[in-house]
Amino acid sequence: MKILFIGDVVGSPGREMIDEYLPKLKERHEPDAVIVNGENAASGRGITQKIYDQLIQAGADMITLGNHTWDNKDLFNFVDKADQLVRPLNYPKGTPGKGIRFFQAGSAEVAVVNALGRTFMNPVDDPFPAVRQAVTEAKRQTPFVFVDFHAEATSEKQAMGWYLDGKASAVVGTHTHVQTADNRILPGGTAYLSDVGMTGPYDAILGMEKEAVLKRFITGLPSRFEVPKTGRAILSGCLITLDRKSGNALSIDRILINEDHPF
Amino acid sequence: MKILFIGDVVGSPGREMIDEYLPKLKERHEPDAVIVNGENAASGRGITQKIYDQLIQAGADMITLGNHTWDNKDLFNFVDKADQLVRPLNYPKGTPGKGIRFFQAGSAEVAVVNALGRTFMNPVDDPFPAVRQAVTEAKRQTPFVFVDFHAEATSEKQAMGWYLDGKASAVVGTHTHVQTADNRILPGGTAYLSDVGMTGPYDAILGMEKEAVLKRFITGLPSRFEVPKTGRAILSGCLITLDRKSGNALSIDRILINEDHPF
Amino acid sequence: MKILFIGDVVGSPGREMIDEYLPKLKERHEPDAVIVNGENAASGRGITQKIYDQLIQAGADMITLGNHTWDNKDLFNFVDKADQLVRPLNYPKGTPGKGIRFFQAGSAEVAVVNALGRTFMNPVDDPFPAVRQAVTEAKRQTPFVFVDFHAEATSEKQAMGWYLDGKASAVVGTHTHVQTADNRILPGGTAYLSDVGMTGPYDAILGMEKEAVLKRFITGLPSRFEVPKTGRAILSGCLITLDRKSGNALSIDRILINEDHPF
Amino acid sequence: MKILFIGDVVGSPGREMIDEYLPKLKERHEPDAVIVNGENAASGRGITQKIYDQLIQAGADMITLGNHTWDNKDLFNFVDKADQLVRPLNYPKGTPGKGIRFFQAGSAEVAVVNALGRTFMNPVDDPFPAVRQAVTEAKRQTPFVFVDFHAEATSEKQAMGWYLDGKASAVVGTHTHVQTADNRILPGGTAYLSDVGMTGPYDAILGMEKEAVLKRFITGLPSRFEVPKTGRAILSGCLITLDRKSGNALSIDRILINEDHPF
Ligand SMILES: [Fe+2]
Ligand SMILES: [Fe+2]
Ligand SMILES: [Fe+2]
Ligand SMILES: [Fe+2]
Ligand SMILES: [Fe+2]
Ligand SMILES: [Fe+2]
Ligand SMILES: [Fe+2]
Ligand SMILES: [Fe+2]
Repeated sequence: MKILFIGDVVGSPGREMIDEYLPKLKERHEPDAVIVNGENAASGRGITQKIYDQLIQAGADMITLGNHTWDNKDLFNFVDKADQLVRPLNYPKGTPGKGIRFFQAGSAEVAVVNALGRTFMNPVDDPFPAVRQAVTEAKRQTPFVFVDFHAEATSEKQAMGWYLDGKASAVVGTHTHVQTADNRILPGGTAYLSDVGMTGPYDAILGMEKEAVLKRFITGLPSRFEVPKTGRAILSGCLITLDRKSGNALSIDRILINEDHPF
Repeated sequence: MKILFIGDVVGSPGREMIDEYLPKLKERHEPDAVIVNGENAASGRGITQKIYDQLIQAGADMITLGNHTWDNKDLFNFVDKADQLVRPLNYPKGTPGKGIRFFQAGSAEVAVVNALGRTFMNPVDDPFPAVRQAVTEAKRQTPFVFVDFHAEATSEKQAMGWYLDGKASAVVGTHTHVQTADNRILPGGTAYLSDVGMTGPYDAILGMEKEAVLKRFITGLPSRFEVPKTGRAILSGCLITLDRKSGNALSIDRILINEDHPF
Repeated sequence: MKILFIGDVVGSPGREMIDEYLPKLKERHEPDAVIVNGENAASGRGITQKIYDQLIQAGADMITLGNHTWDNKDLFNFVDKADQLVRPLNYPKGTPGKGIRFFQAGSAEVAVVNALGRTFMNPVDDPFPAVRQAVTEAKRQTPFVFVDFHAEATSEKQAMGWYLDGKASAVVGTHTHVQTADNRILPGGTAYLSDVGMTGPYDAILGMEKEAVLKRFITGLPSRFEVPKTGRAILSGCLITLDRKSGNALSIDRILINEDHPF
Repeated sequence: MKILFIGDVVGSPGREMIDEYLPKLKERHEPDAVIVNGENAASGRGITQKIYDQLIQAGADMITLGNHTWDNKDLFNFVDKADQLVRPLNYPKGTPGKGIRFFQAGSAEVAVVNALGRTFMNPVDDPFPAVRQAVTEAKRQTPFVFVDFHAEATSEKQAMGWYLDGKASAVVGTHTHVQTADNRILPGGTAYLSDVGMTGPYDAILGMEKEAVLKRFITGLPSRFEVPKTGRAILSGCLITLDRKSGNALSIDRILINEDHPF
């Protein structure tokens, strides 16, 4: 079982990278399942039904989200019926949408969990027991359980990795928009990567126009952040191979596509 | 001009990795200059005179620090006379020690700046103008100016990279203890890496015993973090080549040594 | 039903104020119930069995806590058997101690809830549904339900007040160590005060030696905070009168005792 | 020398309270100087030229600001020429506007400093040395120096009070929108109050519609905060009397006007 995971798609440059390279990545790696984090897909802030449909059309089997989940109000219109969309699990009871979903990858089923960290982030429910319980329940149904842990602090991400080691097939982080180089298989058999990185503008700050972000850091004055519409782009992802029987990870490799690392 | 930079040395497992691999790395890469971040060298918290001497003995030309600078009180005894030690530049006026120092690497001089970020960190002076001014002044003396930007948020780190592009020879981040995979040369000629990662325990959380860190995340109860004394270790670093004339970066490569990536 | 609530007792100066003035306050106001926040009673950090016993001896019917709950390890030895001690309700499942307790005040029963806020504080479980559920259940047993909401942000405190208006008899804040002047009865009948303030050193910063706190703000250097053992002290509290039938608040008055406001 | 200071005016309900009660307060207390914090005067976010003019017209001698300074872009059009407007002193060099201004109060001159805290707030320059230097310089010109310290944490506010004790005439906090009850004269002669509170909607959360704020706390979903246009209102302020010669404080009294504390 091969899973291709692609990190935070940012605006139209990110979507264009998906359109261009997802088919090529599928051809090269022949993944059984494709998961894409889409929390910044709509102009850097949230997702719309149209963009969700496009990402599915482009080859994603499941879309995950993050702290930008609700930035675009359109989500409220389709979050409950979008069965290929997972929002963070640890929102309060009664929140629309689902934090875990299953999809068919060939003859097998894959469970996808999305959760938010709390360190340096807005208060949400405790992700540790919530994710563990979801993983445990999913494991009764399928050996293939993928967790996108959307968090800021490396300590919290590593803690989640160790906490789920031997339970989830893979724990991959998102949110910092920078790919980390610590892909590894933990002793219990769980694939781990602190952050998969982002997909979108390359000469930018986290995918936003660098001039605007710099202005805020340097002057402290308000500055509206926009996704630059032109310029070079990057695609960040990882490829995970799972044992067909146990769901344990056999390998986790990082994928980076940009001018410095051509496809 | 080749600079080898090694990230946050954590406790005795980190120091042992330095003792074992720094000679081998020097033999293999023949760097002109070796810079080591030592903010966690003494049991994970600060640095002592003895450990400073050991790191210099082991081959470091300059030691940088970070938010853990003052964790070990012994530093107050030697910070002002340790001319191979740089503490963050953007502490308030009157703070002991220096935030920029120069050392002789063959016939050339290398300037090393250390600075702290502010996002998700304790309040300190604004690093942006402080670092830019230090870099500008250092440039009058030497083309080789290295910046260790000790910060949490990827946005602030990337902002610093772009801010100094074409001014500093290299801007390399520390603090998250996880190496990022975004090593690149920015358009103006500055080598950039969001975080170089740590040197110390490998089966741990940021170098501390994972059981203790997990306990605090899961129970919220107090839990003393210690550096595990046994077990596998990792060394994280990067190798930067600078143009001998301009000081501009020609290459920046990541170095990871652990059981998954043997030397 | 009259409830006297006294805010964060800090160290021995705080305990001495309790010893001196609690009997006088009881004589003057004849409260049916006395509740004391003791999270800083042991040298400013946590509480011990001995100090718990002293506070009960001095006239407290119930002791509440806060973010400093576990600072003194002695608490683990007695938290489960101390039936006049309430720790924050919204710790994770499995945490020792209880977040709501009842005591007999004459012929009536009083329920006391303690909870932690999350804004600008460490992550804990969501206090809003947890407290509401506890209050609703307590209301089936008694009309007198008192909530000590230990939180930093005035927004979160006011939100809790409005959220529980008409449900709890009183929502009184603690943690900032500064009494606020916004005591009022909300339209639904709940007594509200954002913060009751602290009991301990008066010429100090939140009850700690001001020189040490100032040093940290001004130099950024480490500085150990201690409770000053001599000098003037303050007692901060409030007196709440509840309708004997409905448990609704009839009045809430602030109490401040210090040299500027002598008893 | 009597100074009347009125805290954070929020939206039209706040401005109406100023229009109604500032004349009455002037009649009753006959202050020599009136200072008003206007950071929330324009719909809760920033200030416009028109509203600035209205507040001056209504009787203010000086307007102070805070973290919401730049929320309304109109400020950029007049901040440099508005000589009765002070923005936080500790913004980076090059920021438009001034952090200290003087005005004539009868035959005397009054200096007004505005500064931002850093604890639990966005990074800005260190307020401690900046404010102390401004106060020291102002003291050469006049004995009457008033500081509006716009900060969240009571520790930082008290620290600033003690730091300036004997130097400034008064250090009064703003930002939490809740008046504190700790008005006092510090041993060195400086009037101190942690927070003067807000002026605007009374049945609200920090002056914003409580339903919207509660929604965000309880559901975590996005929710636009607006100033309620109808309903009861509050005015919060303080009256400080200074020695005509030394500028030292003789008294500091709190002012609260609302239905529970009628004028
Ligand atoms: Fe993202
Ligand atoms: Fe995110
Ligand atoms: Fe470190
Ligand atoms: Fe660090
Ligand atoms: Fe406290
Ligand atoms: Fe507290
Ligand atoms: Fe305000
Ligand atoms: Fe404010």
